Amino acid sequence: MKRSAFFISDGTGITAEALGQSLLAQFENIAFSKFTRPYIDSVEKARAMVQQINAAAVNDGARPIIFDTVVNQDIRDILAESDGFMIDIFSSFLAPLEQELTSHSSYSVGKSHSINSNSNYMERIDAVNFALDNDDGARTHYYNKADLILVGVSRCGKTPTCLYMALQYGIRAANYPLTEDDMEHLQLPAALKAFKHKLFGLTIDPDRLTAIRNERKPNSRYASFAQCEFEVREVENLFRRENIPHINSTHFSVEEISAKILVEKGVERRLK
Amino acid sequence: MKRSAFFISDGTGITAEALGQSLLAQFENIAFSKFTRPYIDSVEKARAMVQQINAAAVNDGARPIIFDTVVNQDIRDILAESDGFMIDIFSSFLAPLEQELTSHSSYSVGKSHSINSNSNYMERIDAVNFALDNDDGARTHYYNKADLILVGVSRCGKTPTCLYMALQYGIRAANYPLTEDDMEHLQLPAALKAFKHKLFGLTIDPDRLTAIRNERKPNSRYASFAQCEFEVREVENLFRRENIPHINSTHFSVEEISAKILVEKGVERRLK
Repeated sequence: MKRSAFFISDGTGITAEALGQSLLAQFENIAFSKFTRPYIDSVEKARAMVQQINAAAVNDGARPIIFDTVVNQDIRDILAESDGFMIDIFSSFLAPLEQELTSHSSYSVGKSHSINSNSNYMERIDAVNFALDNDDGARTHYYNKADLILVGVSRCGKTPTCLYMALQYGIRAANYPLTEDDMEHLQLPAALKAFKHKLFGLTIDPDRLTAIRNERKPNSRYASFAQCEFEVREVENLFRRENIPHINSTHFSVEEISAKILVEKGVERRLK
Repeated sequence: MKRSAFFISDGTGITAEALGQSLLAQFENIAFSKFTRPYIDSVEKARAMVQQINAAAVNDGARPIIFDTVVNQDIRDILAESDGFMIDIFSSFLAPLEQELTSHSSYSVGKSHSINSNSNYMERIDAVNFALDNDDGARTHYYNKADLILVGVSRCGKTPTCLYMALQYGIRAANYPLTEDDMEHLQLPAALKAFKHKLFGLTIDPDRLTAIRNERKPNSRYASFAQCEFEVREVENLFRRENIPHINSTHFSVEEISAKILVEKGVERRLK
Protein backbone atom coordinates (compact mmCIF):
# COMPACT_ATOMS: atom_id res chain seq x y z
CA MET A 1 0.00 0.00 0.00
CA LYS A 2 1.29 3.41 -0.97
CA ARG A 3 0.40 6.73 0.64
CA SER A 4 1.63 10.23 -0.04
CA ALA A 5 2.63 12.54 2.78
CA PHE A 6 3.16 16.30 2.57
CA PHE A 7 5.11 18.39 5.05
CA ILE A 8 3.82 21.91 4.47
CA SER A 9 4.96 25.13 6.05
CA ASP A 10 5.06 28.86 5.47
CA GLY A 11 8.59 28.74 6.88
CA THR A 12 11.46 26.31 6.29
CA GLY A 13 9.30 23.22 6.82
CA ILE A 14 11.85 21.76 9.22
CA THR A 15 9.43 21.33 12.12
CA ALA A 16 6.63 19.85 10.01
CA GLU A 17 9.11 17.48 8.40
CA ALA A 18 10.77 16.39 11.66
CA LEU A 19 7.45 15.64 13.32
CA GLY A 20 5.94 14.05 10.21
CA GLN A 21 8.96 11.80 9.67
CA SER A 22 8.86 10.75 13.33
CA LEU A 23 5.20 9.84 13.22
CA LEU A 24 5.29 8.09 9.85
CA ALA A 25 8.32 6.05 10.95
CA GLN A 26 5.95 4.34 13.38
CA PHE A 27 4.07 2.76 10.45
CA GLU A 28 6.67 0.48 9.01
CA ASN A 29 4.38 -1.54 6.76
CA ILE A 30 3.32 1.46 4.67
CA ALA A 31 5.48 2.94 1.91
CA PHE A 32 5.13 6.70 2.03
CA SER A 33 6.02 9.09 -0.77
CA LYS A 34 7.15 12.17 1.11
CA PHE A 35 7.14 15.75 -0.11
CA THR A 36 8.45 18.72 1.85
CA ARG A 37 6.95 21.99 0.69
CA PRO A 38 8.41 25.04 2.47
CA TYR A 39 7.43 28.66 2.00
CA ILE A 40 3.80 28.07 1.11
CA ASP A 41 3.15 31.65 2.08
CA SER A 42 0.54 32.94 -0.34
CA VAL A 43 -2.99 32.07 -1.34
CA GLU A 44 -1.76 31.24 -4.85
CA LYS A 45 0.88 28.82 -3.58
CA ALA A 46 -1.71 27.25 -1.28
CA ARG A 47 -4.09 26.68 -4.23
CA ALA A 48 -1.29 25.08 -6.26
CA MET A 49 -0.51 22.92 -3.22
CA VAL A 50 -4.12 21.75 -3.04
CA GLN A 51 -3.92 20.66 -6.67
CA GLN A 52 -0.80 18.59 -5.90
CA ILE A 53 -2.48 17.03 -2.87
CA ASN A 54 -5.63 16.18 -4.80
CA ALA A 55 -3.62 14.72 -7.70
CA ALA A 56 -1.77 12.50 -5.21
CA ALA A 57 -5.11 11.44 -3.69
CA VAL A 58 -6.37 10.31 -7.10
CA ASN A 59 -3.09 8.65 -7.92
CA ASP A 60 -2.83 6.77 -4.61
CA GLY A 61 -6.52 6.03 -4.29
CA ALA A 62 -6.24 7.26 -0.71
CA ARG A 63 -6.06 10.54 1.18
CA PRO A 64 -2.55 11.99 1.44
CA ILE A 65 -1.42 12.77 4.98
CA ILE A 66 -0.75 16.47 5.54
CA PHE A 67 1.52 17.68 8.32
CA ASP A 68 1.40 21.43 8.43
CA THR A 69 2.79 24.27 10.51
CA VAL A 70 1.19 27.04 8.48
CA VAL A 71 0.20 30.00 10.64
CA ASN A 72 -1.78 32.22 8.24
CA GLN A 73 -5.47 31.45 8.53
CA ASP A 74 -6.34 32.18 4.87
CA ILE A 75 -3.74 29.68 3.72
CA ARG A 76 -4.89 27.15 6.31
CA ASP A 77 -8.47 27.45 5.10
CA ILE A 78 -7.44 26.69 1.54
CA LEU A 79 -5.34 23.66 2.54
CA ALA A 80 -8.25 22.39 4.63
CA GLU A 81 -10.34 22.14 1.45
CA SER A 82 -7.93 19.62 -0.08
CA ASP A 83 -8.56 15.89 -0.16
CA GLY A 84 -5.80 15.34 2.41
CA PHE A 85 -5.96 14.09 5.98
CA MET A 86 -4.73 17.00 8.06
CA ILE A 87 -2.47 16.64 11.07
CA ASP A 88 -2.74 20.16 12.36
CA ILE A 89 0.33 20.58 14.52
CA PHE A 90 0.01 24.14 15.71
CA SER A 91 -3.66 24.32 16.52
CA SER A 92 -3.46 21.04 18.46
CA PHE A 93 -1.01 22.48 20.91
CA LEU A 94 -1.26 26.26 20.85
CA ALA A 95 -4.62 26.43 22.59
CA PRO A 96 -3.55 24.32 25.61
CA LEU A 97 -0.25 26.20 25.75
CA GLU A 98 -2.04 29.56 25.70
CA GLN A 99 -4.13 28.42 28.62
CA GLU A 100 -1.17 27.11 30.60
CA LEU A 101 0.93 30.20 29.93
CA THR A 102 -2.06 32.58 30.29
CA SER A 103 -0.70 34.34 27.25
CA HIS A 104 -1.77 34.70 23.65
CA SER A 105 0.45 33.24 20.98
CA SER A 106 1.58 35.65 18.30
CA TYR A 107 0.73 33.22 15.51
CA SER A 108 3.60 34.55 13.50
CA VAL A 109 5.40 32.77 10.74
CA GLY A 110 8.68 30.95 10.65
CA LYS A 111 9.97 31.82 14.08
CA SER A 112 11.69 28.64 15.06
CA HIS A 113 14.32 28.30 12.39
CA SER A 114 14.91 31.96 11.77
CA ILE A 115 18.02 33.84 12.75
CA ASN A 116 17.59 34.46 16.47
CA SER A 117 20.32 36.92 17.18
CA ASN A 118 23.57 38.02 15.69
CA SER A 119 25.50 36.40 18.51
CA ASN A 120 23.89 33.04 17.74
CA TYR A 121 24.79 33.50 14.07
CA MET A 122 28.39 34.33 14.87
CA GLU A 123 28.64 31.43 17.32
CA ARG A 124 27.56 29.09 14.59
CA ILE A 125 29.83 30.46 11.89
CA ASP A 126 32.74 30.42 14.32
CA ALA A 127 32.00 26.79 15.15
CA VAL A 128 31.94 25.80 11.46
CA ASN A 129 35.20 27.64 10.88
CA PHE A 130 36.69 25.95 13.92
CA ALA A 131 35.69 22.52 12.63
CA LEU A 132 37.13 23.26 9.18
CA ASP A 133 40.37 24.79 10.46
CA ASN A 134 40.91 21.94 12.94
CA ASP A 135 39.80 19.12 10.67
CA ASP A 136 41.85 15.98 10.23
CA GLY A 137 44.61 17.03 12.62
CA ALA A 138 45.44 20.00 10.35
CA ARG A 139 46.18 22.16 13.35
CA THR A 140 46.68 21.08 16.94
CA HIS A 141 47.65 24.28 18.74
CA TYR A 142 44.08 25.51 19.23
CA TYR A 143 42.85 22.47 21.15
CA ASN A 144 42.62 24.68 24.23
CA LYS A 145 39.67 26.36 22.50
CA ALA A 146 37.94 23.12 21.50
CA ASP A 147 34.80 21.84 23.21
CA LEU A 148 35.56 18.34 21.97
CA ILE A 149 38.21 16.49 19.97
CA LEU A 150 37.05 13.46 18.01
CA VAL A 151 39.63 10.77 17.38
CA GLY A 152 39.52 7.67 15.21
CA VAL A 153 40.90 6.06 12.07
CA SER A 154 40.73 7.87 8.74
CA ARG A 155 37.20 7.89 7.23
CA CYS A 156 35.31 6.70 10.28
CA GLY A 157 32.96 9.70 10.20
CA LYS A 158 34.78 12.31 12.28
CA THR A 159 34.44 15.23 9.86
CA PRO A 160 30.68 15.03 9.19
CA THR A 161 30.06 14.63 12.93
CA CYS A 162 32.17 17.69 13.77
CA LEU A 163 30.43 19.75 11.08
CA TYR A 164 26.99 18.64 12.23
CA MET A 165 27.74 19.55 15.86
CA ALA A 166 29.03 22.93 14.70
CA LEU A 167 25.97 23.72 12.60
CA GLN A 168 23.34 22.26 14.90
CA TYR A 169 24.72 23.08 18.33
CA GLY A 170 27.48 25.65 17.82
CA ILE A 171 29.93 23.16 19.35
CA ARG A 172 33.61 23.66 18.52
CA ALA A 173 34.82 20.21 17.65
CA ALA A 174 38.26 19.40 16.30
CA ASN A 175 39.19 16.00 14.95
CA TYR A 176 42.42 14.08 14.79
CA PRO A 177 43.03 10.97 12.69
CA LEU A 178 44.82 8.11 14.40
CA THR A 179 47.24 6.74 11.84
CA GLU A 180 49.44 3.72 11.69
CA ASP A 181 52.29 5.60 13.37
CA ASP A 182 50.23 6.28 16.45
CA MET A 183 49.14 2.65 16.54
CA GLU A 184 52.60 1.21 16.43
CA HIS A 185 53.64 3.37 19.33
CA LEU A 186 50.54 2.14 21.13
CA GLN A 187 49.99 5.47 22.76
CA LEU A 188 48.17 8.74 22.32
CA PRO A 189 49.88 11.29 20.09
CA ALA A 190 51.59 14.01 22.12
CA ALA A 191 49.25 16.70 20.76
CA LEU A 192 46.29 14.92 22.35
CA LYS A 193 47.69 13.97 25.73
CA ALA A 194 47.15 17.33 27.38
CA PHE A 195 43.52 17.36 26.23
CA LYS A 196 42.52 13.83 27.14
CA HIS A 197 39.39 15.08 28.92
CA LYS A 198 38.12 16.47 25.60
CA LEU A 199 38.63 13.30 23.60
CA PHE A 200 35.84 11.16 22.22
CA GLY A 201 36.55 8.13 20.03
CA LEU A 202 34.71 6.97 16.93
CA THR A 203 35.07 3.43 15.71
CA ILE A 204 33.50 1.65 12.77
CA ASP A 205 33.00 -1.89 11.53
CA PRO A 206 35.96 -2.88 9.32
CA ASP A 207 33.74 -3.91 6.40
CA ARG A 208 31.93 -0.59 6.37
CA LEU A 209 35.29 1.19 6.58
CA THR A 210 36.57 -0.88 3.66
CA ALA A 211 33.58 0.17 1.56
CA ILE A 212 33.98 3.86 2.41
CA ARG A 213 37.72 3.89 1.76
CA ASN A 214 37.26 2.06 -1.53
CA GLU A 215 35.02 4.88 -2.73
CA ARG A 216 37.87 7.27 -2.03
CA LYS A 217 40.91 5.23 -3.05
CA PRO A 218 39.79 2.10 -4.89
CA ASN A 219 41.86 -1.05 -4.51
CA SER A 220 44.55 0.62 -2.37
CA ARG A 221 46.28 -0.99 0.58
CA TYR A 222 44.66 1.82 2.63
CA ALA A 223 41.22 0.52 1.59
CA SER A 224 41.96 -3.19 2.02
CA PHE A 225 39.95 -5.14 4.56
CA ALA A 226 43.11 -6.38 6.28
CA GLN A 227 44.37 -2.84 6.80
CA CYS A 228 40.98 -1.54 7.95
CA GLU A 229 40.56 -4.39 10.39
CA PHE A 230 44.06 -3.88 11.79
CA GLU A 231 43.56 -0.16 12.29
CA VAL A 232 40.15 -0.51 13.90
CA ARG A 233 41.37 -3.22 16.29
CA GLU A 234 44.41 -1.22 17.34
CA VAL A 235 42.42 1.98 17.83
CA GLU A 236 39.76 0.23 19.87
CA ASN A 237 42.51 -1.21 22.04
CA LEU A 238 43.92 2.27 22.46
CA PHE A 239 40.51 3.66 23.47
CA ARG A 240 40.09 0.95 26.10
CA ARG A 241 43.62 1.23 27.41
CA GLU A 242 43.45 5.02 27.66
CA ASN A 243 39.89 4.95 28.95
CA ILE A 244 38.59 7.17 26.14
CA PRO A 245 34.79 7.07 25.76
CA HIS A 246 33.87 5.89 22.28
CA ILE A 247 31.04 4.79 20.04
CA ASN A 248 30.80 2.55 17.00
CA SER A 249 29.41 4.80 14.27
CA THR A 250 28.39 2.00 11.90
CA HIS A 251 24.74 1.77 12.84
CA PHE A 252 24.08 5.34 13.90
CA SER A 253 23.27 8.49 11.99
CA VAL A 254 25.30 11.66 12.38
CA GLU A 255 22.43 13.06 14.48
CA GLU A 256 22.49 10.09 16.83
CA ILE A 257 26.28 10.08 17.19
CA SER A 258 26.29 13.81 17.93
CA ALA A 259 23.49 13.60 20.50
CA LYS A 260 25.14 10.63 22.22
CA ILE A 261 28.52 12.39 22.39
CA LEU A 262 27.01 15.51 23.99
CA VAL A 263 25.16 13.42 26.57
CA GLU A 264 28.16 11.28 27.40
CA LYS A 265 30.65 14.16 27.63
CA GLY A 266 28.18 16.49 29.35
CA VAL A 267 28.97 19.23 26.85
CA GLU A 268 26.34 21.98 26.71
CA ARG A 269 25.30 23.29 23.33
CA ARG A 270 26.25 26.90 22.59
CA LEU A 271 23.13 27.60 20.51
CA LYS A 272 19.96 27.97 22.52
CA MET B 1 8.06 35.90 33.80
CA LYS B 2 10.35 32.93 33.48
CA ARG B 3 9.34 29.37 32.55
CA SER B 4 11.42 26.27 32.02
CA ALA B 5 10.84 24.02 29.03
CA PHE B 6 12.15 20.49 28.58
CA PHE B 7 12.47 18.66 25.26
CA ILE B 8 12.59 15.00 26.28
CA SER B 9 13.12 11.97 24.09
CA ASP B 10 14.36 8.42 24.22
CA GLY B 11 16.06 9.16 20.88
CA THR B 12 18.05 12.18 19.69
CA GLY B 13 15.45 14.68 20.88
CA ILE B 14 15.53 16.47 17.54
CA THR B 15 11.78 16.15 16.88
CA ALA B 16 10.74 17.18 20.39
CA GLU B 17 13.12 20.12 20.24
CA ALA B 18 12.05 21.27 16.76
CA LEU B 19 8.38 21.20 17.66
CA GLY B 20 8.90 22.66 21.12
CA GLN B 21 11.01 25.53 19.79
CA SER B 22 8.40 26.26 17.11
CA LEU B 23 5.57 26.39 19.61
CA LEU B 24 7.42 28.38 22.26
CA ALA B 25 8.55 30.93 19.65
CA GLN B 26 4.90 31.92 19.40
CA PHE B 27 5.01 33.26 22.98
CA GLU B 28 7.37 36.17 22.61
CA ASN B 29 6.69 37.81 25.95
CA ILE B 30 7.85 34.83 28.00
CA ALA B 31 11.53 34.05 28.63
CA PHE B 32 11.97 30.29 28.49
CA SER B 33 14.92 28.37 29.88
CA LYS B 34 15.20 25.45 27.48
CA PHE B 35 16.70 22.05 28.16
CA THR B 36 17.04 19.28 25.56
CA ARG B 37 17.33 15.88 27.17
CA PRO B 38 17.93 13.06 24.65
CA TYR B 39 18.28 9.36 25.37
CA ILE B 40 16.00 9.26 28.42
CA ASP B 41 15.65 5.56 27.80
CA SER B 42 15.52 3.92 31.22
CA VAL B 43 13.35 4.11 34.29
CA GLU B 44 16.32 5.43 36.26
CA LYS B 45 16.97 8.25 33.81
CA ALA B 46 13.25 9.08 33.81
CA ARG B 47 13.25 9.34 37.61
CA ALA B 48 16.28 11.65 37.54
CA MET B 49 14.49 13.68 34.86
CA VAL B 50 11.44 14.07 37.11
CA GLN B 51 13.67 15.45 39.84
CA GLN B 52 15.08 18.06 37.43
CA ILE B 53 11.58 19.01 36.31
CA ASN B 54 10.31 19.31 39.85
CA ALA B 55 13.31 21.37 40.90
CA ALA B 56 12.64 23.74 37.98
CA ALA B 57 9.00 23.96 39.03
CA VAL B 58 9.97 25.04 42.53
CA ASN B 59 12.59 27.43 41.20
CA ASP B 60 10.29 29.08 38.63
CA GLY B 61 7.19 29.02 40.79
CA ALA B 62 5.37 27.60 37.76
CA ARG B 63 4.98 24.28 35.97
CA PRO B 64 7.73 23.58 33.40
CA ILE B 65 6.47 22.80 29.91
CA ILE B 66 7.39 19.28 28.78
CA PHE B 67 7.57 18.36 25.09
CA ASP B 68 8.20 14.66 24.82
CA THR B 69 8.49 12.04 22.12
CA VAL B 70 9.17 9.15 24.48
CA VAL B 71 7.70 5.89 23.21
CA ASN B 72 8.21 3.51 26.13
CA GLN B 73 5.11 3.45 28.34
CA ASP B 74 6.94 2.83 31.64
CA ILE B 75 9.08 5.90 31.05
CA ARG B 76 6.06 7.94 30.00
CA ASP B 77 4.23 6.97 33.18
CA ILE B 78 7.10 8.21 35.33
CA LEU B 79 7.39 11.52 33.45
CA ALA B 80 3.65 12.00 33.79
CA GLU B 81 4.05 12.06 37.58
CA SER B 82 6.30 15.12 37.41
CA ASP B 83 5.09 18.64 38.16
CA GLY B 84 5.41 19.55 34.48
CA PHE B 85 2.75 20.48 31.93
CA MET B 86 2.96 17.73 29.32
CA ILE B 87 2.62 18.35 25.60
CA ASP B 88 2.34 14.76 24.51
CA ILE B 89 3.34 14.83 20.86
CA PHE B 90 3.08 11.19 19.90
CA SER B 91 -0.13 10.20 21.60
CA SER B 92 -1.90 13.29 20.25
CA PHE B 93 -1.34 12.22 16.69
CA LEU B 94 -0.69 8.48 16.60
CA ALA B 95 -4.27 7.48 17.39
CA PRO B 96 -5.82 9.53 14.55
CA LEU B 97 -3.07 8.37 12.20
CA GLU B 98 -3.66 4.73 13.13
CA GLN B 99 -7.31 5.16 12.30
CA GLU B 100 -6.65 6.90 8.99
CA LEU B 101 -4.01 4.39 7.95
CA THR B 102 -5.97 1.43 9.39
CA SER B 103 -2.64 0.22 10.72
CA HIS B 104 -1.09 -0.07 14.14
CA SER B 105 1.96 2.00 14.88
CA SER B 106 4.99 0.11 16.05
CA TYR B 107 5.65 2.53 18.91
CA SER B 108 9.33 1.97 18.53
CA VAL B 109 12.05 4.30 19.63
CA GLY B 110 14.19 6.76 17.73
CA LYS B 111 13.12 5.91 14.23
CA SER B 112 13.11 9.29 12.60
CA HIS B 113 16.69 10.36 13.01
CA SER B 114 18.26 6.95 12.86
CA ILE B 115 20.34 5.68 10.00
CA ASN B 116 17.77 4.73 7.36
CA SER B 117 19.82 2.82 4.90
CA ASN B 118 23.42 2.54 3.87
CA SER B 119 22.71 4.31 0.60
CA ASN B 120 21.34 7.31 2.47
CA TYR B 121 24.42 7.30 4.67
CA MET B 122 26.77 7.19 1.71
CA GLU B 123 24.79 9.89 -0.12
CA ARG B 124 25.24 12.15 2.85
CA ILE B 125 28.93 11.49 3.36
CA ASP B 126 29.53 11.94 -0.37
CA ALA B 127 27.71 15.26 -0.26
CA VAL B 128 29.81 16.47 2.69
CA ASN B 129 32.98 15.39 0.92
CA PHE B 130 31.81 17.12 -2.24
CA ALA B 131 31.18 20.36 -0.34
CA LEU B 132 34.61 20.18 1.32
CA ASP B 133 36.49 19.28 -1.85
CA ASN B 134 34.75 21.98 -3.87
CA ASP B 135 34.78 24.67 -1.22
CA ASP B 136 35.94 28.21 -1.95
CA GLY B 137 36.69 27.55 -5.62
CA ALA B 138 39.37 25.02 -4.65
CA ARG B 139 38.43 22.83 -7.59
CA THR B 140 36.29 23.71 -10.56
CA HIS B 141 36.53 20.65 -12.79
CA TYR B 142 33.81 18.70 -10.98
CA TYR B 143 31.04 21.25 -11.43
CA ASN B 144 29.37 18.82 -13.81
CA LYS B 145 28.62 16.69 -10.72
CA ALA B 146 27.32 19.58 -8.62
CA ASP B 147 23.63 20.04 -7.83
CA LEU B 148 24.28 23.69 -7.10
CA ILE B 149 27.14 26.21 -7.12
CA LEU B 150 26.91 29.08 -4.65
CA VAL B 151 28.66 32.29 -5.60
CA GLY B 152 29.33 35.45 -3.65
CA VAL B 153 32.02 37.53 -1.99
CA SER B 154 34.40 35.99 0.52
CA ARG B 155 32.75 35.38 3.95
CA CYS B 156 29.15 35.91 2.91
CA GLY B 157 28.06 32.49 4.24
CA LYS B 158 28.65 30.17 1.27
CA THR B 159 30.52 27.43 3.13
CA PRO B 160 28.12 26.91 6.06
CA THR B 161 25.20 26.88 3.62
CA CYS B 162 26.86 24.26 1.40
CA LEU B 163 27.69 22.09 4.42
CA TYR B 164 24.19 22.39 5.81
CA MET B 165 22.62 21.38 2.49
CA ALA B 166 25.00 18.43 2.29
CA LEU B 167 24.23 17.18 5.80
CA GLN B 168 20.51 17.89 5.82
CA TYR B 169 19.53 17.13 2.24
CA GLY B 170 22.42 15.22 0.67
CA ILE B 171 22.75 18.06 -1.86
CA ARG B 172 26.13 18.37 -3.61
CA ALA B 173 26.86 22.07 -3.45
CA ALA B 174 30.11 23.67 -4.55
CA ASN B 175 30.96 27.27 -3.86
CA TYR B 176 33.08 29.82 -5.65
CA PRO B 177 34.23 33.14 -4.20
CA LEU B 178 33.89 36.17 -6.44
CA THR B 179 37.03 38.21 -5.92
CA GLU B 180 38.15 41.63 -6.99
CA ASP B 181 39.57 40.25 -10.24
CA ASP B 182 36.21 38.92 -11.32
CA MET B 183 34.60 42.20 -10.42
CA GLU B 184 36.92 44.34 -12.45
CA HIS B 185 36.33 42.22 -15.49
CA LEU B 186 32.62 42.64 -14.82
CA GLN B 187 31.83 39.17 -15.98
CA LEU B 188 31.42 35.66 -14.69
CA PRO B 189 34.63 33.66 -14.25
CA ALA B 190 35.17 31.23 -17.11
CA ALA B 191 34.84 28.21 -14.79
CA LEU B 192 31.28 29.22 -13.98
CA LYS B 193 29.97 30.19 -17.40
CA ALA B 194 29.21 26.69 -18.57
CA PHE B 195 27.24 26.01 -15.38
CA LYS B 196 25.22 29.17 -15.18
CA HIS B 197 22.01 27.19 -14.62
CA LYS B 198 23.47 25.79 -11.38
CA LEU B 199 24.49 29.15 -9.92
CA PHE B 200 22.86 30.76 -6.93
CA GLY B 201 24.15 34.01 -5.48
CA LEU B 202 24.52 35.01 -1.85
CA THR B 203 24.83 38.63 -0.86
CA ILE B 204 25.16 40.26 2.52
CA ASP B 205 24.87 43.72 4.06
CA PRO B 206 28.27 45.45 3.94
CA ASP B 207 28.27 46.25 7.67
CA ARG B 208 27.64 42.61 8.60
CA LEU B 209 30.37 41.55 6.16
CA THR B 210 32.75 44.06 7.72
CA ALA B 211 32.07 42.59 11.17
CA ILE B 212 32.60 39.00 9.98
CA ARG B 213 35.80 39.80 8.09
CA ASN B 214 37.16 41.74 11.05
CA GLU B 215 36.85 38.64 13.21
CA ARG B 216 39.03 36.84 10.67
CA LYS B 217 41.51 39.54 9.66
CA PRO B 218 41.17 42.50 12.02
CA ASN B 219 41.86 45.97 10.62
CA SER B 220 42.83 44.73 7.16
CA ARG B 221 41.90 46.40 3.89
CA TYR B 222 39.95 43.17 3.17
CA ALA B 223 37.80 43.83 6.25
CA SER B 224 37.32 47.56 5.72
CA PHE B 225 33.81 48.84 5.22
CA ALA B 226 34.80 50.58 1.96
CA GLN B 227 36.13 47.33 0.50
CA CYS B 228 33.14 45.28 1.70
CA GLU B 229 30.70 47.80 0.30
CA PHE B 230 32.51 47.90 -3.06
CA GLU B 231 32.58 44.12 -3.39
CA VAL B 232 28.94 43.65 -2.42
CA ARG B 233 27.78 46.36 -4.82
CA GLU B 234 29.77 44.96 -7.72
CA VAL B 235 28.64 41.41 -7.08
CA GLU B 236 25.00 42.41 -6.80
CA ASN B 237 25.37 44.21 -10.12
CA LEU B 238 26.86 41.07 -11.62
CA PHE B 239 23.96 38.95 -10.31
CA ARG B 240 21.42 41.29 -11.82
CA ARG B 241 23.26 41.64 -15.12
CA GLU B 242 23.76 37.90 -15.50
CA ASN B 243 20.29 37.14 -14.20
CA ILE B 244 21.56 34.91 -11.39
CA PRO B 245 18.97 34.27 -8.66
CA HIS B 246 20.28 35.49 -5.31
CA ILE B 247 19.37 36.15 -1.73
CA ASN B 248 20.66 38.50 0.93
CA SER B 249 21.83 36.23 3.74
CA THR B 250 22.02 38.94 6.41
CA HIS B 251 18.66 38.36 8.03
CA PHE B 252 18.22 34.65 7.39
CA SER B 253 19.47 31.56 9.14
CA VAL B 254 21.39 28.85 7.30
CA GLU B 255 18.20 26.74 7.42
CA GLU B 256 16.15 29.48 5.80
CA ILE B 257 18.72 30.24 3.12
CA SER B 258 19.02 26.54 2.25
CA ALA B 259 15.27 25.97 2.08
CA LYS B 260 14.79 29.08 -0.08
CA ILE B 261 17.55 28.04 -2.48
CA LEU B 262 16.06 24.56 -2.99
CA VAL B 263 12.60 26.02 -3.62
CA GLU B 264 13.87 28.66 -6.02
CA LYS B 265 16.17 26.35 -7.98
CA GLY B 266 13.71 23.45 -7.91
CA VAL B 267 16.46 21.11 -6.72
CA GLU B 268 15.17 17.91 -5.14
CA ARG B 269 16.83 16.68 -1.98
CA ARG B 270 18.75 13.42 -2.28
CA LEU B 271 17.89 12.24 1.24
CA LYS B 272 14.32 11.09 1.69
